[in-house]
Amino acid sequence: MQKYVYFFGGGKAEGKGDMKDTLGGKGAGLAEMTNAGLPVPPGFTISTEVCRIFYENKGKLGSDIQKQVDEALARLESVTEQKLGSTERPLLVSVRSGAKFSMPGMMDTILNLGLNDTTVKALAKRTGNERFAWDSYRRFIQMYGNVVLQIEKREFDEIFDHIKEKAGAKLDTEIPVLSLQELVKQYKALVKERTKTDFPEDPRQQFQGAINAVFGSWRNPRAIHYRRMNKISEELGTAVNVQTMVFGNMGNTSGTGVGFTRNPSTGEREFYGEFLINAQGEDVVAGIRTPTPIRELDRVMPECYRQLREITDRLERHYRDMQDFEFTIQENRLYMLQTRNGKRTGKAAVKIAADMVKEGLITPEEAVMRVEPLQLDQLLHPILDPKAKTKELAQGLPASPGAVSGRIVFSAEDAVAQAKQGRVVLVRKETVPDDIHGMEVAVGILTSRGGMTSHAAVVARGMGKCCVVGAEAIKIDERNKLLMAGNKQLREGDWITLEGSSGKIFEGQVATVEPDPASGDFAAFMGMADQIRRLGIRANADIPRDAEVARKFGAEGIGLCRTEHMFFAEDRLPHVQKMILANTEPERREHLNKLLPFQRADFEGLFRAMDGLPVTIRLLDPPLHEFLPKREELMVEIAVLRAKNGAPSQIAEKEKLLQRVETLHEFNPMLGHRGCRLGITYPEISEMQCRAIFEAACKLQKEGRTVKPEIMIPLVGLPKEFEEQKAIVDRVAEEVFTQTGAKVEYTVGTMIELPRAVVVADKIAESAEFFSFGTNDLTQTTFGFSRDDAGKIIVDYMAKGILKADPFQELDRDGVGVLVRMGIEKGRSTRSNLKIGICGEHGGDPSSIEFCDEVGLDYVSCSPYRVPIARLAAAQCVVARKSAAERGRTV
Amino acid sequence: MQKYVYFFGGGKAEGKGDMKDTLGGKGAGLAEMTNAGLPVPPGFTISTEVCRIFYENKGKLGSDIQKQVDEALARLESVTEQKLGSTERPLLVSVRSGAKFSMPGMMDTILNLGLNDTTVKALAKRTGNERFAWDSYRRFIQMYGNVVLQIEKREFDEIFDHIKEKAGAKLDTEIPVLSLQELVKQYKALVKERTKTDFPEDPRQQFQGAINAVFGSWRNPRAIHYRRMNKISEELGTAVNVQTMVFGNMGNTSGTGVGFTRNPSTGEREFYGEFLINAQGEDVVAGIRTPTPIRELDRVMPECYRQLREITDRLERHYRDMQDFEFTIQENRLYMLQTRNGKRTGKAAVKIAADMVKEGLITPEEAVMRVEPLQLDQLLHPILDPKAKTKELAQGLPASPGAVSGRIVFSAEDAVAQAKQGRVVLVRKETVPDDIHGMEVAVGILTSRGGMTSHAAVVARGMGKCCVVGAEAIKIDERNKLLMAGNKQLREGDWITLEGSSGKIFEGQVATVEPDPASGDFAAFMGMADQIRRLGIRANADIPRDAEVARKFGAEGIGLCRTEHMFFAEDRLPHVQKMILANTEPERREHLNKLLPFQRADFEGLFRAMDGLPVTIRLLDPPLHEFLPKREELMVEIAVLRAKNGAPSQIAEKEKLLQRVETLHEFNPMLGHRGCRLGITYPEISEMQCRAIFEAACKLQKEGRTVKPEIMIPLVGLPKEFEEQKAIVDRVAEEVFTQTGAKVEYTVGTMIELPRAVVVADKIAESAEFFSFGTNDLTQTTFGFSRDDAGKIIVDYMAKGILKADPFQELDRDGVGVLVRMGIEKGRSTRSNLKIGICGEHGGDPSSIEFCDEVGLDYVSCSPYRVPIARLAAAQCVVARKSAAERGRTV
Repeated sequence: MQKYVYFFGGGKAEGKGDMKDTLGGKGAGLAEMTNAGLPVPPGFTISTEVCRIFYENKGKLGSDIQKQVDEALARLESVTEQKLGSTERPLLVSVRSGAKFSMPGMMDTILNLGLNDTTVKALAKRTGNERFAWDSYRRFIQMYGNVVLQIEKREFDEIFDHIKEKAGAKLDTEIPVLSLQELVKQYKALVKERTKTDFPEDPRQQFQGAINAVFGSWRNPRAIHYRRMNKISEELGTAVNVQTMVFGNMGNTSGTGVGFTRNPSTGEREFYGEFLINAQGEDVVAGIRTPTPIRELDRVMPECYRQLREITDRLERHYRDMQDFEFTIQENRLYMLQTRNGKRTGKAAVKIAADMVKEGLITPEEAVMRVEPLQLDQLLHPILDPKAKTKELAQGLPASPGAVSGRIVFSAEDAVAQAKQGRVVLVRKETVPDDIHGMEVAVGILTSRGGMTSHAAVVARGMGKCCVVGAEAIKIDERNKLLMAGNKQLREGDWITLEGSSGKIFEGQVATVEPDPASGDFAAFMGMADQIRRLGIRANADIPRDAEVARKFGAEGIGLCRTEHMFFAEDRLPHVQKMILANTEPERREHLNKLLPFQRADFEGLFRAMDGLPVTIRLLDPPLHEFLPKREELMVEIAVLRAKNGAPSQIAEKEKLLQRVETLHEFNPMLGHRGCRLGITYPEISEMQCRAIFEAACKLQKEGRTVKPEIMIPLVGLPKEFEEQKAIVDRVAEEVFTQTGAKVEYTVGTMIELPRAVVVADKIAESAEFFSFGTNDLTQTTFGFSRDDAGKIIVDYMAKGILKADPFQELDRDGVGVLVRMGIEKGRSTRSNLKIGICGEHGGDPSSIEFCDEVGLDYVSCSPYRVPIARLAAAQCVVARKSAAERGRTV
Repeated sequence: MQKYVYFFGGGKAEGKGDMKDTLGGKGAGLAEMTNAGLPVPPGFTISTEVCRIFYENKGKLGSDIQKQVDEALARLESVTEQKLGSTERPLLVSVRSGAKFSMPGMMDTILNLGLNDTTVKALAKRTGNERFAWDSYRRFIQMYGNVVLQIEKREFDEIFDHIKEKAGAKLDTEIPVLSLQELVKQYKALVKERTKTDFPEDPRQQFQGAINAVFGSWRNPRAIHYRRMNKISEELGTAVNVQTMVFGNMGNTSGTGVGFTRNPSTGEREFYGEFLINAQGEDVVAGIRTPTPIRELDRVMPECYRQLREITDRLERHYRDMQDFEFTIQENRLYMLQTRNGKRTGKAAVKIAADMVKEGLITPEEAVMRVEPLQLDQLLHPILDPKAKTKELAQGLPASPGAVSGRIVFSAEDAVAQAKQGRVVLVRKETVPDDIHGMEVAVGILTSRGGMTSHAAVVARGMGKCCVVGAEAIKIDERNKLLMAGNKQLREGDWITLEGSSGKIFEGQVATVEPDPASGDFAAFMGMADQIRRLGIRANADIPRDAEVARKFGAEGIGLCRTEHMFFAEDRLPHVQKMILANTEPERREHLNKLLPFQRADFEGLFRAMDGLPVTIRLLDPPLHEFLPKREELMVEIAVLRAKNGAPSQIAEKEKLLQRVETLHEFNPMLGHRGCRLGITYPEISEMQCRAIFEAACKLQKEGRTVKPEIMIPLVGLPKEFEEQKAIVDRVAEEVFTQTGAKVEYTVGTMIELPRAVVVADKIAESAEFFSFGTNDLTQTTFGFSRDDAGKIIVDYMAKGILKADPFQELDRDGVGVLVRMGIEKGRSTRSNLKIGICGEHGGDPSSIEFCDEVGLDYVSCSPYRVPIARLAAAQCVVARKSAAERGRTV
């Protein structure tokens, strides 16, 4: 018969610490501690498998399981020499949830189970502490009433407060026995009134009800929500832990507390936590009494303190990780109720991992697994001062981390004008490419539309600038320069604060603290990751400033330089526009010639910043109409001019411009005249860009720098497109080499960002020297999702369980991933040493990085501030794969 | 040594009729006729291989080939007992091109080669016909001067006309010998002046020059253009045919002519052609003298006529196809100069094929190969009266065939209003879905933008309505209701004529003729195709009228009913708009309930029309904003209202509408909130549609009809999307069955139109009962080409040789085709009997149909007027595959 119930107690447990799948985290910890000989109150764990059966059988356990539970209970009675409902030695137990992954506060707990009008007297008699007995009883009714019988906690609280007041008690501990007895009476009356039945006096019935309630709490709304947020599978289920009660509320020689073996906030190696004398665990959490720092325990109960230090030290060494523990002291006797690996801040995680390696406690491989890559973000950006008071306005999507305060502006122009006077936050419905200059001067960006990969989000991450997008609860009236959130209205110039890592938006100015990314611990930790990882890490950077940041953060090259960002700069845009509006090739060339010096200077800066490292430069990609005024705005302008009898010459001029804009207008620009299609229609644009690249490279080389340009042709779908553009690159390179007398090694490769490119990757690789997967566009075309439009659909799909994750954030392995694999396989079938990278947003996402490592990419490229995250994620997947392989061998 | 030169003459030829690859069409025909013992002037063919060598060696033949040419020439001299340049018996030859596929008039020909000042006299003496000799000489200089020496024909013509006038001659044959001699003198002077050298008197030099010129003409611009238009490979090359001259210009017992063994226009079995007495071949073509119908030859030279009839009958039986032949009679002796399978109209092709089967000349398999599928179009639509005079205005893309005249209107509203008074042609820059009602009443549609798969093109083809799109030379001013073409200006109400099969646009009203698609020959012919084909043929039809047409044309079901077309109808659009603007589900349901009776009636009509056949119904697909006013138009309206101080309430109302439109606005609607994404966000829409389908189906079934609904979920990319929508279909079906007491068999399947759907096709097939490849969208996403925008890019790519064909017209086998194969393979790996079809535009394209047959699809679905074309194409690929397999066995 399958085993469903695992006993622990009397120095031995049927379970083990590595049985989290079956016993949940808490159950596994209790078993492990019991086996280690620690003072753990005996009990048993009903496995997570039972939770699944519970739901399959619509709330019934079945006779097999019931039998095992009954046997375990009998054994517990025997070990403790107590009996449920006994009028002499009544057994009291706690019934708690405990899933594989900690879900703090999400599921239900019942303490003191077994008390009724009879056993409470036995308890009073046995302990000689009537007050304690009745206090425990009223707590039990309250908890059971709330959790099992679904009566609102508020209703119990009202009765409690009333009686406490009547008794004139300041503290809960001051409520006299008689009042507690009155409380029990009134609680029971409440139960009777609400449920139309008496409170269950039969401890067996209490026991059954509690187990069902705990299993039932697995699917309460807040637990479901928590799992969805934390990507915990619905299938896991919770275990139920039944454990003999020990009491911290038996007077001043009793107490209860929680603690950490190291400081979970800073990572310092210090004993950290707090406790309460004469209290049960819930009091510490509830915050009614202020707990005492744990060092004080040394003064109050030195022996218990010494024992606790000794035990927790052992636990940390045993688990080889910082522990988060719970304990209870019952009449000077210490009991351990829980231990688990403690949650910690990014800063603490890095310090603890680095320290534990120094202490010889863990290996570097283990150390790199101890930090969630995304936690590093906290070390790289300013954060809100945890002590600051905040007034939250709304919540958007956490598009780019950091925390900033600034005065609101509603347009790029206003941003530029007012940034001179001080920090501004640019607030827009959505941003467009010509907002770039405003985004550059703003300290943060807030949009009410768009998803995690909208224009604002992508550009802000690239700039390492705090950004919150898609805050749909906010209404933005750009015309009247108003921001509405609920009934609040903010105007231009008002202060606002953004927290990019949570997506929260606050009213006014909130203090921030600047962390120190260059600390010794951080550097030591990242060094370990670098030793382990196989994947190269590059950055997406378009300007020298970003390149320098990237290099500082450890980038080993630039994986994507988007040359169009250079076209949007204020001093260039007029030339770009004239070039686009030109009617003939010579005219276009004339304006391109004016752009050439700018582009050359851009590349010089980049090459200088990345001296010795490769720089991948993508030729012009976006559709040309992005550089022109918006069609609908022109239409409105003309209509208004007409309505107001404007000057005919002015109207005619605008109409001419509109005509050209109309010619370039596209219904689906994402699928239009962009990428290499531009370079094929206007070879002179590619020529100018290549000339700028090679002239810059030759100049730098003459200065003694090492320049490694890699020229990348975007949006290739047909092998001939690539060949045609490569011919231009090679021709211009030769021309520049001849003119300058220098010669620079370079390669020409392509983005693989269309399904067709994947399908013909073997043909493309005949002439392409490298591939870079543009997984943003590849995700768009594979799914048929426009990044700019699909945000709401994706949110809806995730809520409905149709999508597990946003495919623009986490590479969709089952769909896009299959195409990526196919592209790699086909590409390398032609050119076995083909260098392959990825430069979409996924390059900075840990789960996607794992995939990139698995499929054998050479490098990932991400925004500069993501580089450390990518370095760590790349190391983690090496370790994970190694462990999996080792597990495979031992099985 | 490889054989490059093939001799024919004296009753025997080294080549054969099936050696078209090597000898070209003409050379193979000459060899075959020679071997058959027909009177063919002897000569030799220089193979197409030499043409390739000619270009590789930059115009040199090399000594091997030269040697073979010299030997062949010597043999010709020996057989004819004549000698090039001989002053006694000079050999005169023609030098002609001849590629594998006929390219009429594209390449060069030289007649009478071998004449010079000496041999002309010998010819005169030998023939006793001085006028003939000098006439031949002047023709030679003229042709050689033009073809080999590149002097413009016009310059020779001017001299000729001048001398003809001076001689007072009315006909060319009336020019006296002295004038011909003067002509030769002046021609030579012209050559000297233009080339700075004397005309080559040496026949060997003439000979070499002519061969080079003919090979050179393979790559003249008009030949290259012709090949591109007709998809003839550049690699084939031309052969050169050198043949002893025979002369039709030796007086009244000589002549020359061309003919067909059957009428190439009607297919009637009648001897058809024309001839000229005392003329060379070029005169027939040149149109200077009006040729005589060939039956007249019976009167003039009965013996030659009898012999010609006998020979051409033999040729037709030999080749088992209608022959197009050329002959020359030299002094009462008949010579055959060419025979080949004759080009014919669609009507003739069908009649000849059907007749030849009846005559026992060919098998049905052969018959179906004798008609180009696209030729059938001529039998299905009205065509311009070939006798009508036309004034061409411009040329656009031939989007949908037919020929119509109508009065110009510039908006859908005007179309509806004026169609009551008579036929209108709707002229728009581009059409949008809410132009549908205008398109329905117009007889034809003309747009200045968009490609072959633009909205106008797709809808018009669906309606079987004449349509020309992308006529970029035309400027349309919708505001002022003007159409500009060059310096012409047409206004509303002016007549215009469109020829949809050529894309031509004519001024005024041009007469058309109505063909008869239900003729006996057509039915007989299509019956043969149906016997042979494996693929099922369905039609895309949205309304009963289209379904009836489709059925008449032989559709075996409806493969795609686009339900949104029902939403655009005038009486429904207001309900649709209210539904979209509703804020709550109950409100939406209220408006959907108003749409329900309309949709139900639509489906009743469709099911009735298709009684007994399957009807595939696609649930709502387009983004909702397509049903609302255009964003930019609203913006303009509001701005104008503001500028003119309009009523605030009116402005507020418009602004509210704009706000909703803004919410629905998408940057790339093709990749936005459409397809099953709509049904997932608004399940009530899918519910209403399913209810309409099943209520209609149950009603019809109760009337005794057989209804086979197949419900198709669009734009699925994730298996769960499909499952969620299928659950709605099944639930509503059960509800309706319970309510009505009827039960209808139905299936639920999906479109495969996204690369992700292909990748997970095996998962989708777990619940989907059929697939239909939406290759329009699949092509869009695979290429990253928006149908509406990529027209110009595709044209440019085809001109540059980057694309061989428009992938929206001809399924891209190397890219999209690979994904189609993958989808089929994956789908059938899960469900081996999965029914799979295609319903994109490709379903009506013969090349794509061949692919569909090859990869094992069950059916193709195309617009109703394409159904016969698809039936034929489906038969042809079966025959072609069988022949290929047989060839494979015999090799």
